[in-house]
Amino acid sequence: MKSVLIKDIYRNTEKYEGQTVIIEGWIRTLRASKAFGFIEVNDGSFFKNIQVVFEEGLENFAEISKLSISTSIRVEGKLELTPGAKQPFEIKAISIDVEGSSNSEYPLQKKRHSFEFLREIAHLRPRSNTFSAVFRVRSLAAFAIHKFFQERGFVYTHTPIITGSDAEGAGEMFRITTLDPKNPKVDEQGEVDFTKDFFGKETSLTVSGQLQGEAYALAFRNIYTFGPTFRAENSHTARHASEFWMIEPEIAFADLEDNMELAEEMLKYIINYVIENAPEEMEFFNNFVDKGLLDRLNNVVNAEFARVTYTEAIELLKKSGQTFEYPLEWGCDLQTEHERYLTEKIFKKPVFVTDYPKDIKAFYMKLNEDGKTVAAMDLLVPGVGEIIGGSQREDKLELLEQRMDDMGLNKEDYWWYLELRKYGSTRHAGYGLGFERAIMYLTGVSNIRDVISFPRTPKSAEF
Amino acid sequence: MKSVLIKDIYRNTEKYEGQTVIIEGWIRTLRASKAFGFIEVNDGSFFKNIQVVFEEGLENFAEISKLSISTSIRVEGKLELTPGAKQPFEIKAISIDVEGSSNSEYPLQKKRHSFEFLREIAHLRPRSNTFSAVFRVRSLAAFAIHKFFQERGFVYTHTPIITGSDAEGAGEMFRITTLDPKNPKVDEQGEVDFTKDFFGKETSLTVSGQLQGEAYALAFRNIYTFGPTFRAENSHTARHASEFWMIEPEIAFADLEDNMELAEEMLKYIINYVIENAPEEMEFFNNFVDKGLLDRLNNVVNAEFARVTYTEAIELLKKSGQTFEYPLEWGCDLQTEHERYLTEKIFKKPVFVTDYPKDIKAFYMKLNEDGKTVAAMDLLVPGVGEIIGGSQREDKLELLEQRMDDMGLNKEDYWWYLELRKYGSTRHAGYGLGFERAIMYLTGVSNIRDVISFPRTPKSAEF
Repeated sequence: MKSVLIKDIYRNTEKYEGQTVIIEGWIRTLRASKAFGFIEVNDGSFFKNIQVVFEEGLENFAEISKLSISTSIRVEGKLELTPGAKQPFEIKAISIDVEGSSNSEYPLQKKRHSFEFLREIAHLRPRSNTFSAVFRVRSLAAFAIHKFFQERGFVYTHTPIITGSDAEGAGEMFRITTLDPKNPKVDEQGEVDFTKDFFGKETSLTVSGQLQGEAYALAFRNIYTFGPTFRAENSHTARHASEFWMIEPEIAFADLEDNMELAEEMLKYIINYVIENAPEEMEFFNNFVDKGLLDRLNNVVNAEFARVTYTEAIELLKKSGQTFEYPLEWGCDLQTEHERYLTEKIFKKPVFVTDYPKDIKAFYMKLNEDGKTVAAMDLLVPGVGEIIGGSQREDKLELLEQRMDDMGLNKEDYWWYLELRKYGSTRHAGYGLGFERAIMYLTGVSNIRDVISFPRTPKSAEF
Repeated sequence: MKSVLIKDIYRNTEKYEGQTVIIEGWIRTLRASKAFGFIEVNDGSFFKNIQVVFEEGLENFAEISKLSISTSIRVEGKLELTPGAKQPFEIKAISIDVEGSSNSEYPLQKKRHSFEFLREIAHLRPRSNTFSAVFRVRSLAAFAIHKFFQERGFVYTHTPIITGSDAEGAGEMFRITTLDPKNPKVDEQGEVDFTKDFFGKETSLTVSGQLQGEAYALAFRNIYTFGPTFRAENSHTARHASEFWMIEPEIAFADLEDNMELAEEMLKYIINYVIENAPEEMEFFNNFVDKGLLDRLNNVVNAEFARVTYTEAIELLKKSGQTFEYPLEWGCDLQTEHERYLTEKIFKKPVFVTDYPKDIKAFYMKLNEDGKTVAAMDLLVPGVGEIIGGSQREDKLELLEQRMDDMGLNKEDYWWYLELRKYGSTRHAGYGLGFERAIMYLTGVSNIRDVISFPRTPKSAEF
């Protein structure tokens, strides 16, 4: 007989009521007296455990009574409803077999552990309640994103991870090489000869798939990427990782307004999907990680997002009377304190800030008619600040070349990107959603290291 | 009025019949006489074009008549059915506006281009029929994979791309670094000091997420990865790329038999999904890229996959009387010629070959009771050979350590992987599906460079 998933028993209880079932999983807790015992078993399929009751009639009663937490077992037993009890049902064991033993050295004993400690056992922490919930929600949110875009006919595009160009025209990057680290081949001038490197030139890990995504949007109209991106920044904050995943939709025959509509619709879709498909996990986060989380998320789902230009936002912040650590002048970038004040105090809901000064934004953003601002948008949400950044793209060849010249970029490196403006250019737009930031937002978890299975940060690439 | 997607017009024609619609897209062909003209427009949402008819009454008739291929236009017109014509309907233009011009330098003129040439314009090739079909199928297949696993409750796990370990115990890897390439920091012995590198040690691009995936399977029971992997091999074949995507499910409380069942079910699911959701594209491949493709795929979907042990397979091949380039002895790895003979001539359907000699397989595969073979499986399919490789994993600590010692691996590097066998080990299994190989198989496209948006191969990392 095959084992059944504990999730299946919870979701389809009537099917199993009174039946003999087999479950397999790991012991989360065990307490036993001389005559009987209780085991909470978790099989990873579901957030909740199932309770197994065993009695002294069991052949190996003594052995089972002494098992350690995290032992893997196979239980055959009868599913019985337990009205009035804490748990809705339990399994009365007919037999319990040990598959893999454990012992008292197991680091995840039943007590509260700090998130810092749990990072050191990243291979075991998904067996804890919190991380089981985080990574199940992460999986569901990833699928929600695919589902959202696929239902709308978007083409999922795998843009390259290894790149010879720098998509942001900035951004510190990791070099990829197979040259001898100690004695790299050098050219006649004594410089490192990258033509001898694996790809015949200097290559790095991508910081964004946007530029390649634009090429695909100008073929498929609507595309999205969902892949890893990298920053070689020596940041030690709770919001920065060296390796993270990003979603970058790109839409053709679309302007900044279409872009905002898409972002709003997408964010609401993801939240709804996760609340619907992980109710137990979301309740857990709401109770134990971030009280008020569900209210905040429901508020986002039901709100019509506000819109304000950067120029208006600066005025609103100045008029607010609030003192900020960073002073505000037209032309400065908004800091998190400004962003959070705007979305939490002034608008009390998500807000798109649009039309930023061109000098604080990337070269590819479309110049507005005022000649001073670009058609950029940042989505700010309560509790976090910026969660999405995007823009309409410059679709006029001359203006794009001018911007690249102004910023000192080498146009030859971007020959193919410029060609997109020569052969049937169209208005188009897109944005980036940092996937880990979204998971932090959805779960209330405040450190990015706790929403990544095996996080990579400066001086840390364990496991 | 907003434009509608051409796909929507094809799929819901009755909704638009006789209505005025707006479409936006790129000119694929244009022919005009003095009195009227025809434009085939493609908007990327669908494989097929839509025909626009315009007449001399049009205000800008002369301008429109001279437009170049790939010009982007906006057409307002009336959708009329055209019974008896080649196309099911056409749009009678009321107005046509040019959004972005093009010119005769556009490299994708209406003629046959070699795949080699098209690789040089990888930013434009998705605008051609073949690549539009390839990358739409790629997107659908990716979604089918997510859907398959999510429907079964598998947790999608993002295993790290940057790694300090080598999952296969072999495999040539790309180094990731921020050290000065010319004058890297050195230690007292004059060796490169990787403690000064970004992560404080030598790091590489992952070749597989399996080991980390196992940690997650031992928490969630059923997980899968879907992410990029890398090989720094100087291979110039049509089947090797330096960067490619891989799917790696890992299942706990499961053995080799469960693993094969999962692989068979998954492969059939993907094929069915793509045939159902991209009928036009699949027909195109069947007619123009690989005649017999659909028969082959349908055969796979309807077949019950065969199973044979490696030992039996060697005997069958020897008895076949066929002469092979590579001679066959028990203990040798199977070559593509052997694999294809097995699946195409002997079994005439997909076949799992199991229980390979341990010496030609990786350290983590479970040793069989004979002490000579391991619980490995390769799935061979007609037309390709191996498409999936997997195994049951060694779940006994002592046997795993023994194998690592035999193969000269440093056990300390794998401390956390070994711990998975200390704390509630269970039988578990998994496999890897190379995503690009799967797309080649689904489309009949024979060069891996033609199923990757911007391929990375030795000496080539363009775009």
